[in-house]
Amino acid sequence: MPRFKCVISYDGAAFFGYQVQPGMRTVQGELERALTEVHKGMKTRVSASGRTDARVHAVGQVIHFDTESRIPAERWPAVLNQKLPNDVVVKNAEQVEDDFHARFWTKSKEYRYIIERGPHQTPFRRHYAVHHPLTIDIQQMKAAAAHFLGEHDFTSFSVAKSAVVDRVRTIERFDIIEQGNEWIFIVKGNGFLYNMVRIMVGTLLEVGSGKYKPEDIPVMLEATDRSAAGKTAPPHGLYLWEVAYRNKQD
Amino acid sequence: MPRFKCVISYDGAAFFGYQVQPGMRTVQGELERALTEVHKGMKTRVSASGRTDARVHAVGQVIHFDTESRIPAERWPAVLNQKLPNDVVVKNAEQVEDDFHARFWTKSKEYRYIIERGPHQTPFRRHYAVHHPLTIDIQQMKAAAAHFLGEHDFTSFSVAKSAVVDRVRTIERFDIIEQGNEWIFIVKGNGFLYNMVRIMVGTLLEVGSGKYKPEDIPVMLEATDRSAAGKTAPPHGLYLWEVAYRNKQD
Repeated sequence: MPRFKCVISYDGAAFFGYQVQPGMRTVQGELERALTEVHKGMKTRVSASGRTDARVHAVGQVIHFDTESRIPAERWPAVLNQKLPNDVVVKNAEQVEDDFHARFWTKSKEYRYIIERGPHQTPFRRHYAVHHPLTIDIQQMKAAAAHFLGEHDFTSFSVAKSAVVDRVRTIERFDIIEQGNEWIFIVKGNGFLYNMVRIMVGTLLEVGSGKYKPEDIPVMLEATDRSAAGKTAPPHGLYLWEVAYRNKQD
Repeated sequence: MPRFKCVISYDGAAFFGYQVQPGMRTVQGELERALTEVHKGMKTRVSASGRTDARVHAVGQVIHFDTESRIPAERWPAVLNQKLPNDVVVKNAEQVEDDFHARFWTKSKEYRYIIERGPHQTPFRRHYAVHHPLTIDIQQMKAAAAHFLGEHDFTSFSVAKSAVVDRVRTIERFDIIEQGNEWIFIVKGNGFLYNMVRIMVGTLLEVGSGKYKPEDIPVMLEATDRSAAGKTAPPHGLYLWEVAYRNKQD
């Protein structure tokens, strides 16, 4: 059956996360409902590059599905968007090889995390950026972020109860840029453990406030113990920004 | 009793407009509830520069209230924000003369209206910008907007059933600027009739799509008849941006 890959974006505010859960409104649930409608009731499954938690957003989540429909690739976004609620949108679609897999073929992922500064949160940003009223040393945060670059065991920066055995990941980019009254944390790596970005950002904010020093990051990594790192930042500042795929021959 | 003036911002998405209505969630209702709590149950009234409709936003709405509380001006934002839901925020407060009035002392108001362009609406913008997928001639819209400048009878650009007698208003600024994939309509004038900005913007969009020509605007104004103008643009693209006040001696 022909396989299609789609890039989708969603506002996580009103979703109970990406993955289907009985009785809950989820992104996967909406996508499969829309696809099943297009296929006149025949259940169609969707696979994504990975899950996102409740309130976490996506600008460039990637999914795939198989279909015997004759709808051409360039028509799929309009066909699905017409059946989807307006907090999830299909940005583009392309036909891919039959063995492409949105999860297993990932080469790297980029996440962004947005912090709004200032005395109060702008009402329009309350679902899309985490407000941080305190004075924070951005240079210290940048110095700390640099310690995440490269290959490390990120056990200290993932949930303690995770069943994942191999916790070594490579971070190739970790930038903090200022845009108006917001800070945008840009993190790109070959893979991320559960809650890893949120724990890294939460820890960096505690570096910025002086609780930790940049040099504490390597010590935290060495500890391979969740309790060695800082707090988990809230979900609604987090965006799955882009997913890159390897070629078949890689 | 000392009188305080506050600049407030709110996200109109979850409000049934600014003005108190029994059984409805309104901005005024939330403000008066918060103020009544601060005054230990003593009902406190709030006056605003004007109403805004359901789903319409405010970046710089202005209100005033009277209080015998000893809370200094600079403390009022934090005191109220602590009791307000996070879709309305008090940005600043200052003590004003006893005869200041948020509505009657206005000198001018600025509204902005945001249109998002492109093949689909960004999920994060769905409450904050109106999506317009079609090709539109922005130069034609700018030429048409210029015809609104100056003093005119705006009867054609207000709701037909309005009880307001004097419908002459002066528009001192009407700009359309591009910002990324959005157009921002900036309108400033000495006063606005009910739905006036939304009817002007809706009509300009119909100029942009070729239904009307820029030269049709003066004809529409002359007609002093609502049916002569174009459609009313939806509420959620509209922001009450700033309110300016005259000095007592003006």
